[in-house]
Amino acid sequence: MSKAVKYSLAEDQIPDHWYNIVADLPEPLPPVLHPGTGQPIGPGDLAPLFPMAIIEQEVATAREIAIPGPVRDVYRMWRPTPLYRARRLEQAIDTPAKIFYKYEGVSPSGSHKTNTAVAQAFYNREAGVARITTETGAGQWGSALAIAGSLFGIDIKVFMVRVSYDHKPYRKAFMQAYGAECVPSPSDETEAGRAILAEHPHTTGSLGIAISEAVEIAAKNDDTKYSLGSVLNHVLLHQTVIGQEALAQMEMAGAYPDVIVGCTGGGSNFAGIALPFLGQKLRGGNDVRIVACEPAACPSLTRGKYAYDFGDTGHLTPLVKMHTLGSTFIPPGFHAGGLRYHGMAPLVSHLLALDLIEARAFHQRACFEAGVQFARTEGILPAPEANHAVRGAIDEALECKKQGVSRNILFNLCGHGHFDMTAYDEYLAGNLTDRHYDQKQLDHALGALPRVGP
Amino acid sequence: MSKAVKYSLAEDQIPDHWYNIVADLPEPLPPVLHPGTGQPIGPGDLAPLFPMAIIEQEVATAREIAIPGPVRDVYRMWRPTPLYRARRLEQAIDTPAKIFYKYEGVSPSGSHKTNTAVAQAFYNREAGVARITTETGAGQWGSALAIAGSLFGIDIKVFMVRVSYDHKPYRKAFMQAYGAECVPSPSDETEAGRAILAEHPHTTGSLGIAISEAVEIAAKNDDTKYSLGSVLNHVLLHQTVIGQEALAQMEMAGAYPDVIVGCTGGGSNFAGIALPFLGQKLRGGNDVRIVACEPAACPSLTRGKYAYDFGDTGHLTPLVKMHTLGSTFIPPGFHAGGLRYHGMAPLVSHLLALDLIEARAFHQRACFEAGVQFARTEGILPAPEANHAVRGAIDEALECKKQGVSRNILFNLCGHGHFDMTAYDEYLAGNLTDRHYDQKQLDHALGALPRVGP
Repeated sequence: MSKAVKYSLAEDQIPDHWYNIVADLPEPLPPVLHPGTGQPIGPGDLAPLFPMAIIEQEVATAREIAIPGPVRDVYRMWRPTPLYRARRLEQAIDTPAKIFYKYEGVSPSGSHKTNTAVAQAFYNREAGVARITTETGAGQWGSALAIAGSLFGIDIKVFMVRVSYDHKPYRKAFMQAYGAECVPSPSDETEAGRAILAEHPHTTGSLGIAISEAVEIAAKNDDTKYSLGSVLNHVLLHQTVIGQEALAQMEMAGAYPDVIVGCTGGGSNFAGIALPFLGQKLRGGNDVRIVACEPAACPSLTRGKYAYDFGDTGHLTPLVKMHTLGSTFIPPGFHAGGLRYHGMAPLVSHLLALDLIEARAFHQRACFEAGVQFARTEGILPAPEANHAVRGAIDEALECKKQGVSRNILFNLCGHGHFDMTAYDEYLAGNLTDRHYDQKQLDHALGALPRVGP
Repeated sequence: MSKAVKYSLAEDQIPDHWYNIVADLPEPLPPVLHPGTGQPIGPGDLAPLFPMAIIEQEVATAREIAIPGPVRDVYRMWRPTPLYRARRLEQAIDTPAKIFYKYEGVSPSGSHKTNTAVAQAFYNREAGVARITTETGAGQWGSALAIAGSLFGIDIKVFMVRVSYDHKPYRKAFMQAYGAECVPSPSDETEAGRAILAEHPHTTGSLGIAISEAVEIAAKNDDTKYSLGSVLNHVLLHQTVIGQEALAQMEMAGAYPDVIVGCTGGGSNFAGIALPFLGQKLRGGNDVRIVACEPAACPSLTRGKYAYDFGDTGHLTPLVKMHTLGSTFIPPGFHAGGLRYHGMAPLVSHLLALDLIEARAFHQRACFEAGVQFARTEGILPAPEANHAVRGAIDEALECKKQGVSRNILFNLCGHGHFDMTAYDEYLAGNLTDRHYDQKQLDHALGALPRVGP
């Protein structure tokens, strides 16, 4: 067996700032629009939902934003995270490529989500907020915010997509263990939820609906703010600790990545690993290909429109320009609940539109095949979401083999699969099928995109 | 919020040897006896079950045993593990004590078990063994051996106690994801299993039965050996990497432990953290109290007899002198499947008999209460087994408060609870009760201990 290779940073190498790629973009991000007026919104429009420090980060243009001491102190619990060379996987697929991966599953929630949960809980506590509402699909985000809330003394209320709530009781119990309240969505606690239930009493819910519920509660209660686990600029910003550490670790390895691979649901773990490297390129540094890997069953980057859309089903959010399948799109069932969002981070969408990144879509069986191969060679069982990145990285390595070239491939292993064993069980029993979205439903959802502008 | 404090070692500080306390014992361990002759067994008697390198470690008297390079290379995947100062827990319980914990949940199986699984898989592969059989209760050990088997290319067959097999399907799927075979025990694949099923067709199984099945398969097949996840000397030996790292980390913290706390099922994680410190004491170093925390529902150290007994229900194993509840003892149902063994490691039992350690028993509700308090302050959700150590450490800290003294308390957080959310769910819903063993059944089991000696 070849030597396991881990590149470990010392604790004082935890980044002291987040990297804001907005400072280095060749073209600015399209503005966020008010759905009523069609005009760009201002910070005041977001004030009912977020504390001002978060709003400032959402629109920040400075390249570096200092990480507050108390946030870094919590990061110390699991950061710096390890970066590995996947020698045994390389051998198993007989590739001349070098595969590296950053592992974010060592956090107490088992995924990268904790990086932003801690920051958001901190800024809310500083602003005197008593309660935060949020939504969760697979449960990774709700778990992370539950932990952060318990550490900073803030109540957390999580609207969990009903199908996940019913099928993943362990996630619910996990959030409750940290003192969070977990409600299946749609619920009868909100107007948005009641409206959906009236029309579709047996709906299994969606992220878009759960967002509407969480936003509504925050908007209606002075002591309550809202928190999102992906998509928005400040969330992607907080995840850049991943890529900054990876920059230092790849330097330790004496290898700069030729290709960076990440899975994309809302875009935050992908951005977290990729943006610090892309920033180097934009500032005249090394070139690097960046590949976003998404589920073929919910393919916002490869099949969506780049257009203004609502972030939620109930149309309570502002309009953002993003790759979207339409806020009424309902993906078929598949085992990567974290990748079921109809849209994509505006920042990631903008980068695709500027040809600074690429996107590929994969069906779930190919992803689970990659995940099992990874577990049996590298020892770590990835989350179903992360399996998309593993698939993408293996395919890049196989392409190297075909071309007879060696490249440095870096991917983000954003979380472990310990809460997702039902999905693996189905896969191993041969009961997993590749699910396709309904083209008619997608066409309808895209046809219903809001009209914006003159 | 106070600063999170983590003491991290560099990779080259992974121990290069295991520490063997046998070299420092004031009195030698009682011999292992052949059940037929009542005479001490020799290495040849164990050869059908274990490769010779393991047997040599089982009877080794050298103080230090080198860790082979390929084993250290795998250890690098997650070792050195972090040691934390639990400042937020200290604040929450308002204690003058300093609480430190070593966290073994960062391994790919989520517990300390991987430390010995990797070593055992290595020695078996070196001996050309094609397959290893073993038993598992809660599933932590089976998971760890499944991972080690996949890394060293050895087939793994796990007999899983039926009640766990039925109630913890995620564990089964986890082992299968790594390519291991997982069979509910008792099964019809062995004579031992068939005999139990004939008498008790609806039995939920026990560790003692599962051991009989795994041992039988190994004894009957030339290409197959057996592996145990705790109890035996060589298993405890492999776990001493934990305590050796903790020695260096406590030195970084500038604090030598006054008290060391660990949970005990078979005794391996407890021994792993405690023995290197106890060795220092035995060689004239600092004094240290060492407290073994066991479940009140299966209290081998506090209610068992120190006597020769079989390690399994089918009486296929040699006789070892240990604290035992009798090989026919059946504990009531409680949520710490890793602590349900009728016996205790002979080495740990010997230390208790020599008054070098203490033992305390706790009911499960008090343990879950401690675990939830720990999660909400320190961020990590412990396994139900580890909750016994958390309870013990908190009680020590509360005693310090009562006495108005500060002590350094170190405990081993041997694994995370991500696979144990059903138990937390029951606890949080208020449905968990403290279970008591049946005194008559215990008396009967103790009365049936084998007669040994003249």
